[in-house]
Parts: sequence; C-alpha cells; structure tokens
Amino acid sequence: MVTAQLGGEFLGTLRSFDRHGSDDGGLTRLAGSAADVAARTEFAERVREAGLHYCTDAVGNQFGLRRAPDGSPVVLVGSHLDSQPSGGRFDGQVGVVTGLFAVIEHVRVDDPRTRSVNVGVVNWTNEEGARYQPSVMGSSAFIGSLSVEDALAATDQRGVALGDELSAAGFLGEADIRSDLAAYAEVHVEQSARLESQQIDIGVVSGNWAAAKYTVAISGQQTHTGPTPMADRVDALYAASLVIAAVHERGLDDQEGNLHTAVAWLDVLPNSPNATPSCVRAKVELRTDDPRKAEATAAWFEGLLTAVETRTGAAISIEERSVRPPRAMWADGVEVVEQAARRAGLSSTRLSTVAGHDAVVLNGQVPAVLVFIPSAGGFTHNRFEYTSDADLLNGLDVMVGTLDELAFRVARS
Amino acid sequence: MVTAQLGGEFLGTLRSFDRHGSDDGGLTRLAGSAADVAARTEFAERVREAGLHYCTDAVGNQFGLRRAPDGSPVVLVGSHLDSQPSGGRFDGQVGVVTGLFAVIEHVRVDDPRTRSVNVGVVNWTNEEGARYQPSVMGSSAFIGSLSVEDALAATDQRGVALGDELSAAGFLGEADIRSDLAAYAEVHVEQSARLESQQIDIGVVSGNWAAAKYTVAISGQQTHTGPTPMADRVDALYAASLVIAAVHERGLDDQEGNLHTAVAWLDVLPNSPNATPSCVRAKVELRTDDPRKAEATAAWFEGLLTAVETRTGAAISIEERSVRPPRAMWADGVEVVEQAARRAGLSSTRLSTVAGHDAVVLNGQVPAVLVFIPSAGGFTHNRFEYTSDADLLNGLDVMVGTLDELAFRVARS
Repeated sequence: MVTAQLGGEFLGTLRSFDRHGSDDGGLTRLAGSAADVAARTEFAERVREAGLHYCTDAVGNQFGLRRAPDGSPVVLVGSHLDSQPSGGRFDGQVGVVTGLFAVIEHVRVDDPRTRSVNVGVVNWTNEEGARYQPSVMGSSAFIGSLSVEDALAATDQRGVALGDELSAAGFLGEADIRSDLAAYAEVHVEQSARLESQQIDIGVVSGNWAAAKYTVAISGQQTHTGPTPMADRVDALYAASLVIAAVHERGLDDQEGNLHTAVAWLDVLPNSPNATPSCVRAKVELRTDDPRKAEATAAWFEGLLTAVETRTGAAISIEERSVRPPRAMWADGVEVVEQAARRAGLSSTRLSTVAGHDAVVLNGQVPAVLVFIPSAGGFTHNRFEYTSDADLLNGLDVMVGTLDELAFRVARS
Repeated sequence: MVTAQLGGEFLGTLRSFDRHGSDDGGLTRLAGSAADVAARTEFAERVREAGLHYCTDAVGNQFGLRRAPDGSPVVLVGSHLDSQPSGGRFDGQVGVVTGLFAVIEHVRVDDPRTRSVNVGVVNWTNEEGARYQPSVMGSSAFIGSLSVEDALAATDQRGVALGDELSAAGFLGEADIRSDLAAYAEVHVEQSARLESQQIDIGVVSGNWAAAKYTVAISGQQTHTGPTPMADRVDALYAASLVIAAVHERGLDDQEGNLHTAVAWLDVLPNSPNATPSCVRAKVELRTDDPRKAEATAAWFEGLLTAVETRTGAAISIEERSVRPPRAMWADGVEVVEQAARRAGLSSTRLSTVAGHDAVVLNGQVPAVLVFIPSAGGFTHNRFEYTSDADLLNGLDVMVGTLDELAFRVARS
C-alpha cells in the first residue's frame, strides 16, 4: 500500500493537470494544442523535480527515466496526456500520473535487486487521434508500425502539421530506447461499466477486440439543390447517410452485443446549403472480439458499399483501411497484475478492451500490461467521465506492485 | 438587335470576369473572398469607364446608375457576381454583365422619353449563401426582409464576418435608392434543361416554387465509439443519417416530380473519429410548386423529426425555418419580356423558377422581371455549367428591349 502522503501528492498532481484544457468539467486537450503543450510542460517539470532524467524522442513521446539511457533494460509505465475534444479528465492522464508516482515510489524504495533496471514513466504523443489521425500515433511510431515522417506530417483541418506544433514547443528529441524496452505497463479507466456493475476493483486486460477502421470517399455530382430533377442527382451525402445508418444498425441489431460500429467523422464538400455534395469522406469503425464476426462484418461492409453505389449512382472507394487483429495480452503480465491486486487486497477480473490503447499497440512487440480501474456509469469521451479517488488510489497501488514485479523479473532474466 | 460590336464587347467582358476565382473551368468566388473583391473591383471600374455613377449601399450592393440618385424613379437590371464553391461561370455574372451592357445601350440611345428615369445595373451581395448564410442576402437587406446588421454580422466557418470583409475592401457605402426603385429586371441561366429540351430561346419566369428551408440541430451524447454498448449510445450522426435519407427519398419517390428535397450542409461535433457525435446541425430544403404539397411535406418533415427522436433517443430542434411562398411574378413584366423576345425574333415560353433569385426576393415589393436563357444539359452549380454565346447574346437582346420598355412605362406613369 502506498502511504497516505504519496497518495495525497498523487491525487493533487492529477488535479493540477486538470487545469490544462479544462472545459466545463471535462478536458479539451488536443494533441499539439496550447493545452497539450502546457500539460507536457508540467510533465517535464514534475519529472525533473522527481530527480528523473527527462528526454523526448523523434515523435515527441516524453520519458522520465531513473537515469539517462545507458543500454540497461527499461521498464516503462505510462499512458497519454492528450484528450478528445470535450473529453474527460481521466482518460489517459490517470495513467501518466499514476506511472510517474509508481516510478517515484520504486526509485525511493531502491531495491538493490532491481537497480540494474532503468524504470521510467512515459507520455505517448497523440493517443486520441482527434485533431490528428491516426490515433495511438506516438506508440505506433515508437514500435515502427507508423513512420516518424508520416506522424509528424499529419495535418489538422486547418493544415497545421503536428510536427510543426511539437517542434515549435521543443518536444522533438533524439532519445531512442526502443531496443532497451523490456516491459510496459499502463493503467487506464475502463470506459465502460463492467467493473462498476460487478463491483470489482481492478480489470486485468487479457486481450483486445478486433477493430477494422476505414476511411471511405463517396463521390457524387455537385448540382443545384433546387432546379435539378431528383432523378438526375447523384448526392454524395444521401449515399453517405445510407452507409452511416446501415453501419450503426448492423451493430445495434447484433444479437450477441459483441459488434460495436460507428461513423463519427465526416467531411462534406462543398458543404454549401444550395449545392448537392460532390464528395463525402467518412471514417467507419467495426469492432468485435469474434474473429469470424470480424471477417463476416468486413465482407458485409464491402457489400454495403457496392449496394449503396448501385442504389445512388455514387462512386465509393476505400481510401484507408487499418485492421487491428484480436490478440491476447502477455500472459505472464496478466498474472503479475492479478498478484499485485491480490497483495493490495483488491478484487480483480479478466476482461478484454474494446478500445485501442498504447499498451495494445506495444503488445506483441513488447511484453505489455494493461490495467483497468472503474469508470462510473461507463461515461467516457465526455465531461461526465469519472473515477473515484479510492479507485484511482487502487490503480496506483496495483501499478506500484506491478512495476516492482516487472522490474524484478527483468533484472532476473 | 444589339450591334455586333456591342455583342463582342459584352462577351469579352464576361470572359474577363472569368479570371476572378477561376477554378478548373468553373468558378470559386465566395462572397467577400479575394476573388469576389477582385470581381467587384472590375465591376466598379467598368461602371466608371462606361460613364455611369458608381455607388454602394450599407450591405455592399453595388450600383452603376445613369446619374447620381436625385429622387427620380430608378429601373435596375442585374444579378450577382458571387458563386458557389466549385460553381459555374454563368450563374449570376451573366446577369450582371448583361445588365451593364443593357444600361450602356439604353444610355447610348438616349431616348428623350425615358431620360427622366435613372436606369442602372446592380451586383447584389452574397446571392449564393455558400460562405455566409442566408442566401439572397443583398437583395433581402435591400427590401428590408433581412436587417443590414444581421447580414453584416454573418460569419463563415472560421468566424470571419462578411461585414468585415466588405468594409476592409471598401464596399460598404451609403446609397439608399430603395424608395426610388420602380422596376427590376434580371436575366439568369435556367439551371435546368427545360428550354434546351424544348429548343426554346427564352424562358419568361411567371412564378416561383415554394421553398421551405430549415436548420435543425440534432443532439446526442458524446461517448467512445469503442467500449460503449450500442444500446447505450445516442449518436447524433446516426439520427442525422436517418433524416438525410428520408428527406432525399421523399423527393425521389414523389410521383409528380414536383417535390425537390435536399440536405447539402452539415456540421458535425466534435467530428473526432473515436467520439460518437454529440451534435449535428443540418440544413434541409423542401421545394414544390404545389401549395398543398408544400403544406403536407412540411407536416411530414416535422413528423419525421419526431419519429427519428423516438427511434434514436436524440433530441431534435428546428433552429431556423424560412418559408418562401409560391408567388406569381409581376404579370405586366411577363408580357414586357414576351414582347421583347418576339421583337428580337426569339421563341419564348413561360416557366417557373425552382431556385430563389434576387428577382424573386424583390418580386411582390417591386415590379420584378426574371428571364431565363438555356443551360446546356441543365448542369449548374458545378464547372460543367454552360450557356452558348448565341444564347448569351439572345439574353442581352431581350434585356435591352425589356429595359427600354420598363423605362418607358415608368416614365409614362
């Protein structure tokens, strides 16, 4: 159990971060924005105040390490400080601040058996993918599944590049610890109500749902909304509306409840009230934990696009497609977390994550652990997101135990 | 018949205006943009070169008058120089340049019987309503159905006010000729293929379709597109898609073909790929020439919104509603145009306008005339918009005759 003093400092630090991008009880802290820069600046300051070595890598991932990288194995704990627009105060920054205090505690105890391990906290760049796509950008660039160049070249709706924002604020560095990374652990709010409804303290993530994400471009013909006869119109927004409705209803009608579907981003051209849309781009997500359902749903979706083309005359192309396969988390790590929960006197259950997280990105390439703490009511990605102080402290307890054990195992190996 | 020399100058002037906002064979000349400012500047120069009195009013409507306003009756001919994004080269500017040359010809002939009448050309501000809503803004402010303050305060998607754009470019003046205006005439491309398919030279607009325009706000609950169970979601974009599809299909399925429907403008919040939309605003148009169908369709639309609320859990409110009733054009004016066409040796037919035009706005408050010339294939609001030189010259011929007759009637009254 962490001391009351450490717990108090932890909660106070979390509240302190709430200032950056505070928005009506929630947070608007888009990657690379002034609010994100402020949060990153506080992160760097707190890392230095804790006596840790501060450094950044080529995509602006921020690290606070026990010591400067020296080739010894690294164990990282962390998450992300960026948020959704009008997002919540817990998604992401809980994991970063918990990681910071778990590292502080680990270094304070200074177990001689784990001194050889370079423990550290990390803030991954642009996990949310709100202002800049794709999401989980920093962790993806870290493991090389996304190029650093592509990440930095991503532009927002106004054409501002993420690389320019991060460079101007001084967050692009040269740290390169990929080959030293021996294990990664992350605590995150659950973002659904499974833990709360079962009154369980800790969720040990044992695997992730499959997620297929598409950007489709739907092309019609721009014409006047008035005089052009209806039969002569090829209205890209009408075609898009058929796609959006069908995608949502496919998930809604799924009997087993393990197909989650959404279209949440749309770009309409020319978006003039009197001109039928010439092009609509839409981002479509299809998630399930059943590999066969994932395959069937992908096939259904491609058939849907063809059917909408036939019905409306629009031409639909898939511009981007990314598939995250369902995958089990590191089995040993699941046991490490369960043991840490048990030692802290907390109940735990294994569950899967529907959402992508930095730990999910690292999993498979690096031994990675993902821990959930309850989200009240399951509210998330909005200002009603809430996790109690007791649950936050439980998360810190488990992460302290998890980091100690991971460092011990790495040192011994 | 206008002389070959005047016709050549007219066509050359029209081509000269094409430079401002030229876009892949079409035009992008949004109200208040640099391209619009350039076109307005050329308009002012050409008015002055023609020896006309140049002035502007409080919303930036530009006038080129035979002489400075002196209380004598005014007869105006004109249209608008702004365009849709990726719009055509004929919609609007044909009417302005035709008006300019009709006035030049009228003044050159200098019939002593019409000297008392102050003829002039007008370029109405922001007819299109693309960058700034509502459409037909300049003519609406002119007759007082829209306040000058509201017009100037309209902002674009980036928050830039139209009033600031027009003021910075020097287009806000103090001319006030509303009470002097005795008649108005406008030539416009038809924007559908009725004239072309019947091989008729001139369309004499005898009335306008009803148009009901709504801005609806659809409110859902922002949440994560991943973990939140489908049954717990209130997705504003899903609700919007049901409205868009139903509105389009209501027009498409109309047996008589006299119901034109569209949703062409959408604003999605927060428009982040991983957050279900919290609010979607949509602009909906319902047009018909049948007053009973207009009423039935409006009732159906309100019922649709209620049904979508029930089905999705979203809350839908109508933020704005504007109704343009079906109305006959000035009966004497119809005869004036028919006579002018006959004298020019051109065939004509009466037809109604589905689209709104500045002449439609003025009609009812001012004796107003609207003349259509053919649109090849009916293509409009895109770069394929095309009207032949022969048809353009026919339009000039008819407008010269129409202006002469209107001035004569006004002088005599």
